[in-house]
Amino acid sequence: MKGAVLYAPGDVRIEERGTPRIVEPTDAIIRMTATCICGSDLWSYRGINAVSEPTPFGHEYCGIIEEVGSAVRSVKRGQFVIGSFFASDNTCPHCQAGYQTSCQHRELVAGAQAQMLRVPRADGTLVATPEIPPDDLVPSLLSASDVLGTGWFAADAANVKPGKTVVVVGDGAVGLLGVLSAKQMGAERIIIMSRHQTRQKLARDFGATDIVADRGEEGVARIKELTKGIGADSVLECVGTQESMTQAIRSTRPGGYVSYVGVPHGVTLKGDELFYTHVHLHGGPAPVRRYLPELIRLVWNGKIDPGNVFDLVLPLDQVAEGYRAMSERRAIKTLLRP
Amino acid sequence: MKGAVLYAPGDVRIEERGTPRIVEPTDAIIRMTATCICGSDLWSYRGINAVSEPTPFGHEYCGIIEEVGSAVRSVKRGQFVIGSFFASDNTCPHCQAGYQTSCQHRELVAGAQAQMLRVPRADGTLVATPEIPPDDLVPSLLSASDVLGTGWFAADAANVKPGKTVVVVGDGAVGLLGVLSAKQMGAERIIIMSRHQTRQKLARDFGATDIVADRGEEGVARIKELTKGIGADSVLECVGTQESMTQAIRSTRPGGYVSYVGVPHGVTLKGDELFYTHVHLHGGPAPVRRYLPELIRLVWNGKIDPGNVFDLVLPLDQVAEGYRAMSERRAIKTLLRP
Repeated sequence: MKGAVLYAPGDVRIEERGTPRIVEPTDAIIRMTATCICGSDLWSYRGINAVSEPTPFGHEYCGIIEEVGSAVRSVKRGQFVIGSFFASDNTCPHCQAGYQTSCQHRELVAGAQAQMLRVPRADGTLVATPEIPPDDLVPSLLSASDVLGTGWFAADAANVKPGKTVVVVGDGAVGLLGVLSAKQMGAERIIIMSRHQTRQKLARDFGATDIVADRGEEGVARIKELTKGIGADSVLECVGTQESMTQAIRSTRPGGYVSYVGVPHGVTLKGDELFYTHVHLHGGPAPVRRYLPELIRLVWNGKIDPGNVFDLVLPLDQVAEGYRAMSERRAIKTLLRP
Repeated sequence: MKGAVLYAPGDVRIEERGTPRIVEPTDAIIRMTATCICGSDLWSYRGINAVSEPTPFGHEYCGIIEEVGSAVRSVKRGQFVIGSFFASDNTCPHCQAGYQTSCQHRELVAGAQAQMLRVPRADGTLVATPEIPPDDLVPSLLSASDVLGTGWFAADAANVKPGKTVVVVGDGAVGLLGVLSAKQMGAERIIIMSRHQTRQKLARDFGATDIVADRGEEGVARIKELTKGIGADSVLECVGTQESMTQAIRSTRPGGYVSYVGVPHGVTLKGDELFYTHVHLHGGPAPVRRYLPELIRLVWNGKIDPGNVFDLVLPLDQVAEGYRAMSERRAIKTLLRP
C-alpha cells in the first residue's frame, strides 16, 4: 500500500510501504476513507522538530475496518470508525478520568497518511458511526479524529459556557474549530484573533462575533476594550508560541480560564506573573476519545459542519503539495483521499 | 498608638506611630483585638524582598470598629470585624466573580501589626461577627483574615471534593490550614509533605491521613506509591519555590488540579513539560473576602478550630521575637496581642 514518508524538512514522499497486519490481538486494520495533514505535522516539515530518519507521517484517520485481532470486542470488520492520535485502553484510571491521551498504555498512532493503518487497542481507541456514512459527511467525521476534538477540548478546558465571552488566539484549523465548539457550547461572544481574510470569513461562518487583527500588547488592549476593561471569561490558545500564550493569559479576566492545546514550543511562564493574573490554566494533548461519541452524534445529526475547515482536497499521491500549501498558508487544512 | 515597623532585614521595631484617622468617607478605623505575623512577611524580614525604607508591617487583623466614614453602610462602630489583606469594593466585575484580591479598586492593607488600623473600602472589605466573640474564638477568627482564607482557597482552587486524594506541599501555617480545609471539604485522603514533628502532629490533628518526609523526586515517587501509581487528585502548593511547584505538579494525576497560593519566588514553568502533565493550574492571592462569611460561620459554630495554628502568643511589644521565632522555624505562627 502507499503511504507518506517524511525524509527531511520540506521533503515528504509517497512510497510503497508494507501493508499493515495485526500484531497484537487488540489491533484493528482499517482501510482509509480519508486522512489529512495536521498543523503539528508542520513543526517537523519546517525543520523545527528534528527528523532523524525517514518517518511515516499522519495521525488523523477514518475508514472501514478490514480486520480485527482476536481480542477485539467493540468494533468489527465492515464498520466505519474514527480514532484518536493516541491509542488508549479506555479503562485505566487516567482514561476513566477522561484523559485518554495520558492513558497508562497509550501508543502514538503514526503513518495515517496512507491507504491502510494498524490501530492498536482498537476497543479503547475506535468509535464506529451508526452506519457507513454518506460521502459528504466524511470530512466532518474525519475532523473529529483530531482537529475538531482538539478545538472542542480547547473550549471545554477553557470552561466555555452559555453566555460567556470567548477569545480564540490562532486562526489555524484548531482555532477555527475552537470557534465552532465555543458556539456549540453556547458562548455569547466569540472573538477570534486573525489577520487572514479567508480565515476570518470561515471563523464568522463558524460563529465568531468579532475579529481582532492586532497582536501582542495591542491585541490585548483591543480585547480589553471589547470587554469593558474586564477581559474574556475563556481564552483558547491554539498556536503554541510564547507570544500567543502571553497574549492569551493577558486577555483573560481574573478568575477566567485559559486553555492551550498545541504543543508549546519555547514557551516559559513566570510564576509570579501568572500568580497575579488569577487565571485558570489547563491544556495538553486533547483527549479526543472522551469527546468522540458526542462529536460523531453532532456531525451525524447535522448540528455542526466542521468539515468546512478543509479547503484543499487532494489525492494521497499529492501529499507533498498538501504540505506545501499548508506551510505557505495557502490552505487552512488539506484532506487526502487515498 | 504603637505599631511594628520593618527597618531592614532582621530589624523590626515597635514604634509610636500616628493614630490612623478616616481619610476617605468609605474608611473604617478598627481597634485591634489580635494581629499576627505572616509567612509572607518573612520574605522581607529575611531580605529576599527588598526593604527600601522603614515600613509599617502586617496585614492580618480583627478587632472592634472605632469609627466609620460617612459613606459606610454595612458595618458600624462597636462591631467586631475581620477583613482581608486587600481592601476591595466587592461590587466590581472581578469582585462579583469572586476574585476580590483582583478588585478594580483594590488597596493593599498594611501596618496591621499595630494597636489601630485604617481599613479602606470598609463596606466591601470587612465582615462582622454575629456578636462580640468570646476571647477563645479570637485566634480562629483572626486566622480567617489571611492564613485560613488562603489555605481554604488553596483547597478550593485545587478542586478538593468529597472522597478525593489530596496532597499538601508545605507544612507552614497555610499548608496546615490547607489540610484543615481539605478535611472540611470532605477529602478522603490527605497527605502532607513535612519533616517537622510538631507540624506533622498538628497536620494530623487537622485531618492529615499520611505524612511524606521525602522531597523532590523521592517525594514524588512516594506520592505515586501511595496512590497506586496514579498521582493525587488535588495538590496544594503552599510554599512558592521552584522545588515545591515542580513537586506539586509531578505529584498530580493527569487531569488533576494544582493550586498555588504563595507568591512564587523565582519559579518558571516550561510550557511543554506542563502540557504533557495534563494538570489544571490555578492560584494567586487568595480572595479571602469571598470565603469570609462562610469561614466566620464555621468558626462561630465550632466546626473548625484553625486558631490552633498559632503556637506562639506574644504581646505586640515583643513583635521582634515573634519574627525571629518564625524565621528560625521555632514557631509555626505568632499571634500578637496589642
